Amino acid sequence: MALKDERVTLAHGGGGRAMRDLIEDVFTSVFRPDGMEDQARLQAAALAEPGARLAFTTDSFVVDPVEFPGGDIGTLAVCGTVNDLAVGGAKPLWISAAFIIEEGVEVALLRRIVASMAAEADKAGVKIVTGDTKVVERGGADGVFVTTSGVGVIPPGRDLRAMNIRPGDVAIVNGVLGDHGAAILAARGEMALSAEIASDCQGLGHLMEAVLVTAPGARAARDATRGGVAAVLNEMAEAAGVAIEIEEDALPIRAEVRGMCEILGLDPLYLANEGTLVLFVPEAQAEAALQAMRGTEAGRGAVAIGRAVAGAPGRVSLRSAFGGSRIVDMLVGEQLPRIC
Amino acid sequence: MALKDERVTLAHGGGGRAMRDLIEDVFTSVFRPDGMEDQARLQAAALAEPGARLAFTTDSFVVDPVEFPGGDIGTLAVCGTVNDLAVGGAKPLWISAAFIIEEGVEVALLRRIVASMAAEADKAGVKIVTGDTKVVERGGADGVFVTTSGVGVIPPGRDLRAMNIRPGDVAIVNGVLGDHGAAILAARGEMALSAEIASDCQGLGHLMEAVLVTAPGARAARDATRGGVAAVLNEMAEAAGVAIEIEEDALPIRAEVRGMCEILGLDPLYLANEGTLVLFVPEAQAEAALQAMRGTEAGRGAVAIGRAVAGAPGRVSLRSAFGGSRIVDMLVGEQLPRIC
Repeated sequence: MALKDERVTLAHGGGGRAMRDLIEDVFTSVFRPDGMEDQARLQAAALAEPGARLAFTTDSFVVDPVEFPGGDIGTLAVCGTVNDLAVGGAKPLWISAAFIIEEGVEVALLRRIVASMAAEADKAGVKIVTGDTKVVERGGADGVFVTTSGVGVIPPGRDLRAMNIRPGDVAIVNGVLGDHGAAILAARGEMALSAEIASDCQGLGHLMEAVLVTAPGARAARDATRGGVAAVLNEMAEAAGVAIEIEEDALPIRAEVRGMCEILGLDPLYLANEGTLVLFVPEAQAEAALQAMRGTEAGRGAVAIGRAVAGAPGRVSLRSAFGGSRIVDMLVGEQLPRIC
Repeated sequence: MALKDERVTLAHGGGGRAMRDLIEDVFTSVFRPDGMEDQARLQAAALAEPGARLAFTTDSFVVDPVEFPGGDIGTLAVCGTVNDLAVGGAKPLWISAAFIIEEGVEVALLRRIVASMAAEADKAGVKIVTGDTKVVERGGADGVFVTTSGVGVIPPGRDLRAMNIRPGDVAIVNGVLGDHGAAILAARGEMALSAEIASDCQGLGHLMEAVLVTAPGARAARDATRGGVAAVLNEMAEAAGVAIEIEEDALPIRAEVRGMCEILGLDPLYLANEGTLVLFVPEAQAEAALQAMRGTEAGRGAVAIGRAVAGAPGRVSLRSAFGGSRIVDMLVGEQLPRIC
């Protein structure tokens, strides 16, 4: 039955006909999960391979605003989960999507979010196979929250993890830093900023597969979401017990983002990204990894930004163009709430 | 680092040190996921068995109030996901837990929820292996929302699904109906109801395993959550293209629940349950299934409530003690919002 209601009501979360109509009309008609009954029942030859491991991850998305230049909460939810799997060396296979919807939300908004999710899933080669819908009363939530979980398979013998990083390894990013954080900040309109910066939100699965074919010695990767590149570098340095030095001159940051950060007193190293990762690779394979990245849509702007060094375990430092050096610490909190 | 803050702040969701402290102190110190790095990396011999299938499910929980007699949102989240897997014939293995927390929530409340989740996971024999934490500003959400996803394995050859139900199959429930809905309603305190009814919230994994050993011909099972037994009977009748007749006299409903429903004009058949399922089994195995259920903690009150019959596909009817019959239709919405 086609939905006539223009807005979501509490009845749409109630487990009755209204909920079934919403789910069929807005969600499953677009996601088209195969052979689903209550829950997804899936088969993958890849999982049966001896030594293969299953990767499992989850993220809730509460971004405000729900739609922004470069994407929406749906793009974010699918890319975020695909990327969590991909940076761990897993091939993403299946995604679940659970929606918490505030009463009064426009059905048209849900349709746009669902269309974004389906498009990103297609691009990433994953299937959205199961889901859930809850509706809370007006004021009980702010618009739409989406929680995605992902299942992938890590092929036998593949072992990407931060503790594998060794002094001398090169740190590579696939593109410009801070676009997502800057885009959300501008989209909120609170700052009277006129810059039209689009989020970098994109899936990194194909990029990671390309890198791992060409540079199979890659040690570890992380997507630099909340807390930005600074947070993941700190986590990786700590996990590996190495120091990391990055070069200020090498950091790819758009002039608009740099300008916004200067005006607002923000540091682009701490701005969230949603399609940007940091990869560590042995020096001998660094060039190959860069070339592989640059051959993918998500990696055209790939550059080396620094390296792991012997030194105080966990210390991340930034060398300026003038030869100075400063510590890049982990912040206590985010610079911006509800960034993803 | 031990958390000194008594309440959650926006910094706890920001991707920096405060978030790491919250996650380590409140979540991972209790859940103790093995060998987790970014996401869970898991191995299960059961998944490599030829013909085994992976089951994958998700649910968001927004129950109000968050704590109630018989459980809390954590109990509900783990049991709900375990039960979704179990009624599909899957052995539940791994669970993810994503938290959306309103700024200002007491850390002590989070600790109680996490303790409930860990206890239910232990009972069910599942591991909570990965998670996420987001914090939204005051008024951006109502307290705590939890989204759990679950992965399980369906052994080769096992095929429980509603479309398998045949006329003559017996419908069995494992215990009393409507306790969860009644407990939440009473806990809200809006109705000046003094009844102390506890939710039936419980895991059904061990019960399902016991049933499937003793009654391997079981056709299908569903946990009767939102929309109650009435909703799942309607869904099952429709999927199988059969009619279903249930006997009013056979329905196990507590006197307190029946009394509350009479006062408020509710029908217990539509009240939500969180540890109650409907199982269809061929008549020849019905007694064995009942005995198997009664031997488990969750199934002591198991009884047959009716059967599938040849008749108008999708029709569910209730026969009264006096020989009358009425249609048990699916409601448009729930009787009560935010029941789970």
